[in-house]
Amino acid sequence: MNKAAIISIGNELLNGFTTDTNTPFICDKLIRSGVEVVCSLKLPDDIEKICEGLEFVSRDAEAIIITGGLGPTDDDLTRQALAHFLKVELEFNERVFENMRQYFISRNYQMAEKNRVQAYFPKGSEPLPNPIGTAEGIAACADGKLYFALPGVPSEMEKMLQYSVLPKLSKTAKSKAIFIKKLKCFGAGESTIAQMLGDVMQRNRNPLVNCTVRQGVITLHIVAAAADEQKAKTMALAQAENSKDILGELVFGEDDQSLSQAVAEKLTKEGKTVAVAESCTGGLLAKMLTDIAGSSRYFTCGWVTYSNDAKIRELGVPVDLIEKYGAVSEQVAMAMATAARKKSGSDITVAITGIAGPGSTGQKPVGLVYIAIADKTGCRVEQRNFRADRESVRIRAAQTALNMLRITLKNR
Amino acid sequence: MNKAAIISIGNELLNGFTTDTNTPFICDKLIRSGVEVVCSLKLPDDIEKICEGLEFVSRDAEAIIITGGLGPTDDDLTRQALAHFLKVELEFNERVFENMRQYFISRNYQMAEKNRVQAYFPKGSEPLPNPIGTAEGIAACADGKLYFALPGVPSEMEKMLQYSVLPKLSKTAKSKAIFIKKLKCFGAGESTIAQMLGDVMQRNRNPLVNCTVRQGVITLHIVAAAADEQKAKTMALAQAENSKDILGELVFGEDDQSLSQAVAEKLTKEGKTVAVAESCTGGLLAKMLTDIAGSSRYFTCGWVTYSNDAKIRELGVPVDLIEKYGAVSEQVAMAMATAARKKSGSDITVAITGIAGPGSTGQKPVGLVYIAIADKTGCRVEQRNFRADRESVRIRAAQTALNMLRITLKNR
Repeated sequence: MNKAAIISIGNELLNGFTTDTNTPFICDKLIRSGVEVVCSLKLPDDIEKICEGLEFVSRDAEAIIITGGLGPTDDDLTRQALAHFLKVELEFNERVFENMRQYFISRNYQMAEKNRVQAYFPKGSEPLPNPIGTAEGIAACADGKLYFALPGVPSEMEKMLQYSVLPKLSKTAKSKAIFIKKLKCFGAGESTIAQMLGDVMQRNRNPLVNCTVRQGVITLHIVAAAADEQKAKTMALAQAENSKDILGELVFGEDDQSLSQAVAEKLTKEGKTVAVAESCTGGLLAKMLTDIAGSSRYFTCGWVTYSNDAKIRELGVPVDLIEKYGAVSEQVAMAMATAARKKSGSDITVAITGIAGPGSTGQKPVGLVYIAIADKTGCRVEQRNFRADRESVRIRAAQTALNMLRITLKNR
Repeated sequence: MNKAAIISIGNELLNGFTTDTNTPFICDKLIRSGVEVVCSLKLPDDIEKICEGLEFVSRDAEAIIITGGLGPTDDDLTRQALAHFLKVELEFNERVFENMRQYFISRNYQMAEKNRVQAYFPKGSEPLPNPIGTAEGIAACADGKLYFALPGVPSEMEKMLQYSVLPKLSKTAKSKAIFIKKLKCFGAGESTIAQMLGDVMQRNRNPLVNCTVRQGVITLHIVAAAADEQKAKTMALAQAENSKDILGELVFGEDDQSLSQAVAEKLTKEGKTVAVAESCTGGLLAKMLTDIAGSSRYFTCGWVTYSNDAKIRELGVPVDLIEKYGAVSEQVAMAMATAARKKSGSDITVAITGIAGPGSTGQKPVGLVYIAIADKTGCRVEQRNFRADRESVRIRAAQTALNMLRITLKNR
């Protein structure tokens, strides 16, 4: 199977309610498996339209992946449409129904009568197990083409694509091999990184280097194409090494590694513990550090001292420091980091204080943030001015704190 | 024109590098103008595929909006494809070329020879001015259908849609006015809510009630169509009131209100303060409560007592309680909430302790979470079993805590 099409089903995708993130996810996974996506189509919850769409994409595509419309409500019509398109009946599947019953029993929920429809499958098709939800998927084969129907819920779709669909596709893929290596960077803008890399980012180059930006994180996608996978991999990795040499400390990770993961790895490897004290980020930095499985190995404690009173009472920040310099000041950031280190007994502590906005009470501008790091060598502080809305100021402040923590750990 | 289709063109949309945000934007604008989107299609930069796609969507749609592929490079093929589909030649447009020349002169740039192609238009079509870029759009009419080609750059596309395309569509729209009201619900599954609402969710009904689910939050989209906007609004609001009566406490807000916002409004209105103590959610609950601008009015302090040691030292949870019942227990959740209330002096406190996974050290299962709320009337605790991955367990636990806080505030 070298050519695939994706059909996303749901009125919510056509009335502007929902941005479809499933399609780019599936595209990415398919291209890595050597499967080309020839088109993607969004259709309403309408049996006739779904059948017309299936017919259209089946002209070119050898594998058709459908997401959405497998739920229990009246507007979920994918299973009915697929059966109609394949010209078969829907059959009740006793095993699937029993699984669903158990799913509800284990959660102490009453199974609604409406859920029963999710145990019906087009005759001759195969249910695809759903490890985290009630709706099993559907795999069918007709005229030498493969049809897969998956739930629209991203977490369920992603697992089922990976465990059930991709293995079936790669078995039959012929393919020019593609290898993609990603480098994750933080600490400079897109144009600075492009300028540092120079010719490498030109189009029609192999490997091709694409660049995407999200919340201050720049991802370089290094895409190499070759006759076989080993050759493509060698090309992509050589380009990655070259770019890493040029970008140095700006590169924090590879592939899907997040800043939190990079920091978590470093902390775990060094057997160090961390604690945080936050004001404007309101718990976001602690949340990011504990996003990672196994974070109890390095994360001990966090204080969200949002009010001045909490800063004074919980961390013992001196009242006169706040009165003299204001709560948003390098002095208070350092006092928070130092106190958190003393109270928690952790190896390293990070403190953030700033103005997330949208309003600012005093002279200081929205987006002004101080980040302090304390360890056994002492305490240092950095100032940032983020020109952005409340949400972005908070995210950028927490990301910058993680990056400072990463560089501190790296240079120890 | 009551039915439209959207075609997005570009290889980058089909290889997973780019999430298409143009389609939901266009959908939203069209539906509010009384135009229904019957399907959307993503195609590669390939003349033949674009022609096939145009033919497919033209079956149903009366207006076809194409984005992308109008640039000056060799892989921009939309104008050629549209001419081929319309069976006309491309003609050089002197005025457009002169505009482009001026654009470059005013920016002190040399116009590349490659830009010349952007002055060619399918015979009989009309250029659509681009207020911020070089690529003018294309408007054509054939067989009573309207075809619009716009640049893929969101900022350019959005302006041209609004100034050039929507006015042309609404002129010919038999124009039914559309009004959309959203209800946000938490505390029951999609199928339970559908069952409670009954016939209301049937298709081909006006108002139409659609349902989307995200992180435990169910959004009901009530879409009413009528001859004029006032009538549509009256219908949608009447349906909303009716659904609110049926769903009662499950409805926490309207339109784009989040659970955090609903809680924030209630706290602000009542002049109450809140503090939190978190273990497995690691700061997420504090982060959600401080997502809202002005949260310093009600949020005082948060403790992320991740280690047992932090629970004991910072909150004074008795060691023997942890030894006897474990850190994940209703006893410890209640001790955390009670201590946080005492230490912070806040009116209400919420505490969360649980096992986010993926691993569990003891007998207790991943997803087991205890949430305690303390106020002047005492302390109560609820147990939940979330069967999900680490990220979802954490989000669902924090959302459930917000919802408990909302209901506590409501019933005071």
